[in-house]
Amino acid sequence: MAQEAPNLTQTVSGWAAHDISGKISPYTFKRRENGINDVTIKILYCGICHTDLHYAKNDWGITMYPVVPGHEITGVITEVGSNVKEFKVGDRVGVGCLAATCLECEFCKSSQENYCDQLQFTYNGIFWDGTVTYGGYSDMLVADHRYVVRIPENLPMDAAAPLLCAGITVFTPLKDSSLLDSPKKKIGIVGLGGLGHMAVKFGKAFGHHVTVISTSPSKEREAKERLGADDFLISTDSEHMQAGKRTLDFILDTVSAKHPLGPILELLKVNGTLSVVGAPDRPFDLSAFPLIFGKRTIKGSIIGGIKETQEMLDLCGKHEITCDIEVVKPEEINQSMDRLARNDVRYRFVIDIAGNSSKL
Amino acid sequence: MAQEAPNLTQTVSGWAAHDISGKISPYTFKRRENGINDVTIKILYCGICHTDLHYAKNDWGITMYPVVPGHEITGVITEVGSNVKEFKVGDRVGVGCLAATCLECEFCKSSQENYCDQLQFTYNGIFWDGTVTYGGYSDMLVADHRYVVRIPENLPMDAAAPLLCAGITVFTPLKDSSLLDSPKKKIGIVGLGGLGHMAVKFGKAFGHHVTVISTSPSKEREAKERLGADDFLISTDSEHMQAGKRTLDFILDTVSAKHPLGPILELLKVNGTLSVVGAPDRPFDLSAFPLIFGKRTIKGSIIGGIKETQEMLDLCGKHEITCDIEVVKPEEINQSMDRLARNDVRYRFVIDIAGNSSKL
Repeated sequence: MAQEAPNLTQTVSGWAAHDISGKISPYTFKRRENGINDVTIKILYCGICHTDLHYAKNDWGITMYPVVPGHEITGVITEVGSNVKEFKVGDRVGVGCLAATCLECEFCKSSQENYCDQLQFTYNGIFWDGTVTYGGYSDMLVADHRYVVRIPENLPMDAAAPLLCAGITVFTPLKDSSLLDSPKKKIGIVGLGGLGHMAVKFGKAFGHHVTVISTSPSKEREAKERLGADDFLISTDSEHMQAGKRTLDFILDTVSAKHPLGPILELLKVNGTLSVVGAPDRPFDLSAFPLIFGKRTIKGSIIGGIKETQEMLDLCGKHEITCDIEVVKPEEINQSMDRLARNDVRYRFVIDIAGNSSKL
Repeated sequence: MAQEAPNLTQTVSGWAAHDISGKISPYTFKRRENGINDVTIKILYCGICHTDLHYAKNDWGITMYPVVPGHEITGVITEVGSNVKEFKVGDRVGVGCLAATCLECEFCKSSQENYCDQLQFTYNGIFWDGTVTYGGYSDMLVADHRYVVRIPENLPMDAAAPLLCAGITVFTPLKDSSLLDSPKKKIGIVGLGGLGHMAVKFGKAFGHHVTVISTSPSKEREAKERLGADDFLISTDSEHMQAGKRTLDFILDTVSAKHPLGPILELLKVNGTLSVVGAPDRPFDLSAFPLIFGKRTIKGSIIGGIKETQEMLDLCGKHEITCDIEVVKPEEINQSMDRLARNDVRYRFVIDIAGNSSKL
């Protein structure tokens, strides 16, 4: 896609981090005019993803300050470009992690835009016009319509927002391992946070026996009673883990802190698959023995393509699946991020950008 | 399989390690009578596998001394049990790593005996009669015929011996990734030892573009000229590795020393597979980023089932593939093991058990 001349005519109110303190404060910036392929979205809600913390604090050394985080965005379309036939003003839509891809490579052409090597993210990316992308911690977004999805009418816009990242991140590995239409498998979910609790919901909706694997014994009750998990394993309890050996068909590991993969692999049956979606800063320890003696597979996966994001949302509509959230005001972002860093949230903070919740 | 009463009537001359020095010395021991399901084999040759070193020195803490190593065995049948219809006296046969499995589980029934959880190895295992198994560093073997394979007539018995472990270990991952009948893939082989050089031969025989990835620049010439590799990457050369990013469909990692998997994963295309067959004592470092950003897969694999071992041998016969070996006398075992520990062999030592080579 050729670079266009930037045409930054629209003033937007948002919230940005300005340095490695990661502290978020109000920030006014410009967005481009609505182009022929764009839609303009009045943002209603934006989830706070753990990735936002990493970017706010420059944990990965790639942050371009000021950074306006946010890639779990829901809102209503207020303008459409002349090329846009799929959406109209008033449509309830969502935007996730993708702002731009090359549109021409094998991945773009096969609805795997998320693996395009020209991919630019919704924030801290470089758009086609050379400008830095700013995310959903803001009251308005101009997005290329090819990266916009519809929110089913029966889903609330606040609890649907985290589906755009947390939801698709755990949905895609389940789909890739053919777990959408083959019920009664024994699946494990490692970690019960924003990603893990969505994975439990999907696993149950698709008819599987779901075991939550966690370091926190205190989470057993909520895993079972609130989320419907069938079983619970404490990963630090060697007796528990020993008893669970070779019992699971598939495990989804959502934990983004460094941890050994060997004991988790041991829980898989021969030929079982461990899907990894968390990205610890430091490498995992991977013992070769459980890998080779069990002919096991480890697969990586990151978010999903636009087509499968829409498929996921439609299935969420069908099964009435949303995220368990705590709605916060924009002025509570810093406090929420602090709590998120301590895993003190059940299970996702969502920023009420337009102040709708307080008006209820 | 019910345990039978041991009936150890046959005296065998072999070579065993007796303590953690790992030093091998002559050892006379007993084997069982040839049972109704057994064949007795006059051993001609036995390869020296790196695993033999680990057991001889009790590196894994599981050695039962005295240990008679050897699981790359070729020989001639001298006796067959009454239940044995598949073999007759005089047949040229081989025995690999398997001495016994349960014969009843899903893996035994689907020709994946190598993943049976009752599996007992050819040495340092416990056979059905309760006796410890002794391997191929000996002049005679009694083996259950269900774990015996035929050596094609056109293959020499010495250079065929390492196919029983090194060969099948690298063949199975190629088969599992559908690389036997889909030529012109770009495949990488990490490490150019006993396993790696066999993998290069298979890769070329099956019509692929083969890149050897090694820490040793000195191996480039032999990789290309002797083994027919198409390309060579020095894994410690960051420019080399950078240029190779996203170029390979499949990589087989044969290295059994600890090394980081991230740079190897980066060489794979999106959706590519890294098959791991080496088993370092310490865990691999596995960086999550190349795994998830490239939707890549890591698969473990250990040896192969009996049916696929026979399939591999038949394909070796068809393509005239054998191992590049250095034949040694039994009294040279210790010296050979020392050289193997230093990777000073092109590419496998094979012990001339029956003294045939010296008679030529």
